Amino acid sequence: MAKPYVIGVDMGGTNTCFGIVDARGTVIASSSIKTRKHADINDYIEELYQEISKMIKENDAEGKIQGIGIGAPNGNYFTGKIEDAPNLPWPSPIPLAQLVSDKFGIQCIITNDANAAALGEMTYGVARGLKDFIMITLGTGVGSGIVVNGQMVYGHNGFAGELGHVVVKPSNGRQCGCGHTGCLEAYCSATGVARTAREFLEIRKEDSLLRSLPLDEITSKDVYDAAVKGDAIAKEIFDYTGTILGKALADFCAFSAPEAFVLFGGLTKSGEYLLRPIREALYSNVLGIFKDVKVLVSELKESDAAVLGASALGWEAKDVAPAAEAKE
Amino acid sequence: MAKPYVIGVDMGGTNTCFGIVDARGTVIASSSIKTRKHADINDYIEELYQEISKMIKENDAEGKIQGIGIGAPNGNYFTGKIEDAPNLPWPSPIPLAQLVSDKFGIQCIITNDANAAALGEMTYGVARGLKDFIMITLGTGVGSGIVVNGQMVYGHNGFAGELGHVVVKPSNGRQCGCGHTGCLEAYCSATGVARTAREFLEIRKEDSLLRSLPLDEITSKDVYDAAVKGDAIAKEIFDYTGTILGKALADFCAFSAPEAFVLFGGLTKSGEYLLRPIREALYSNVLGIFKDVKVLVSELKESDAAVLGASALGWEAKDVAPAAEAKE
Repeated sequence: MAKPYVIGVDMGGTNTCFGIVDARGTVIASSSIKTRKHADINDYIEELYQEISKMIKENDAEGKIQGIGIGAPNGNYFTGKIEDAPNLPWPSPIPLAQLVSDKFGIQCIITNDANAAALGEMTYGVARGLKDFIMITLGTGVGSGIVVNGQMVYGHNGFAGELGHVVVKPSNGRQCGCGHTGCLEAYCSATGVARTAREFLEIRKEDSLLRSLPLDEITSKDVYDAAVKGDAIAKEIFDYTGTILGKALADFCAFSAPEAFVLFGGLTKSGEYLLRPIREALYSNVLGIFKDVKVLVSELKESDAAVLGASALGWEAKDVAPAAEAKE
Repeated sequence: MAKPYVIGVDMGGTNTCFGIVDARGTVIASSSIKTRKHADINDYIEELYQEISKMIKENDAEGKIQGIGIGAPNGNYFTGKIEDAPNLPWPSPIPLAQLVSDKFGIQCIITNDANAAALGEMTYGVARGLKDFIMITLGTGVGSGIVVNGQMVYGHNGFAGELGHVVVKPSNGRQCGCGHTGCLEAYCSATGVARTAREFLEIRKEDSLLRSLPLDEITSKDVYDAAVKGDAIAKEIFDYTGTILGKALADFCAFSAPEAFVLFGGLTKSGEYLLRPIREALYSNVLGIFKDVKVLVSELKESDAAVLGASALGWEAKDVAPAAEAKE
């Protein structure tokens, strides 16, 4: 008999958010700690344990936790380890699932943040009932979580779904954080939008509200604010971004014929400024047999979404635990 | 209790090959008919029935056929129909699985030719034991069959795995048969190689053995023959082709993190002339976490491979039949 709650943990480069979630996706309680406060991973785990234990006690949930799910940068579902995450202060690999399972005495399952988001959408969000969809997370980077026939695609080594590093500009592409050039992430992340803004403002002569800002400090939010005020260059920046992303989505259809793409993350707040060019480029570039694909935007509350997504993994605890351990 | 044999049918634009196959992948008997001989699909089915029935009788296999598997261009696993196949003479859609099932009184399951090849490799070939791999067929066109976690990826509508139509040249790309430009298939198919040969010979001034042939009649086989004789331009044509394909494979890794690519089809006879640049481009462009991916070449006998691949589907007959019918 499954227990009534799971713990979801969203480990980010700055904050680690966590909450108690019930089977209907209600976040009963939530809180956060600073990820980078402790130089030793064991001190971090200790603080996480203290804070979550307090929350469990306060909410009368002792003995009622089915599992702990964690979404973490470069978290590997198969090994339970975080490998080479550029924004975390601890030496790699980090055996996170094992450390948390041992500390709490509750099975912990991890995956990367984009996969966690996809699981969240499938369990509680706009992807409920979809068996084939692709989650695209548009934040500081571009992440993805791919669901085929109702199952997360982990690939043979747990690293599947790195669509942010598909090459969209084979010639003269921008340098990407991964070391290659021309990756989707270098164009269609929040930082990619900021880079596009700098490029456009340097090359172009037209007036723009964005010219009142220091060139190096322009963010995707600034571009959005300018677009809302009718700024032509700001709108073109979103056209450029959305067109690249829409063409990439057309290619992704040829892979797994998804029923929908689900967009998630800060950049989706740009709304139709970004969505219109995405749809236009997608539907004019996709093969006829894939034209029924939908573009959906996550409707999960921003504050809860990442925790909810990670928590969805907690429900797998009893089934997946032995296999996960066997692989470690 | 499963019966001891299956029928595999490989329906091509010119020939339809078929055979009786046992559980170990031995082709007990095989034959073929001309695909385009009959203007009416029912006459085609009738001839197929007569020929296969004769073969079954001659091999004492009456009542011993578990199922019929057909690999056909644009064959849809879910609907059992062939939809918009450009090289077949009958009006679309063609309810092939139903027609064959009704005629033979044996469950028939169809899929497209590349998926059939992937199933064949997984059941009888170099992909035995692999749970995550991508089959790339390099023939007149470029097809693909994707296996994730031991299952064929069909996508939400049965059309997944059209990797030949991923765009590899976003600017000034070649026209592709699908109506778009810059598709992988326009470069890395046998016809793509012939196009590259024509382009290279027109632009370049160097001498080449290929210049003794009429420009419009050069085939990928001619390019191979010239390369074997040491022709520099012929070798460059394969370098160009393999580099484009290797970069595309690097992108495909980011999708499903396959353990291997399996290459299949006429163009693989070019051997190291094609494989070396494929591997070089793949391993220098792929993300570090995917560097362990292997490039394998099908070892199935060319004459049997397509029939074997299709026949693998025949073993699904009893399980898949009800669901397939329910979707029709």
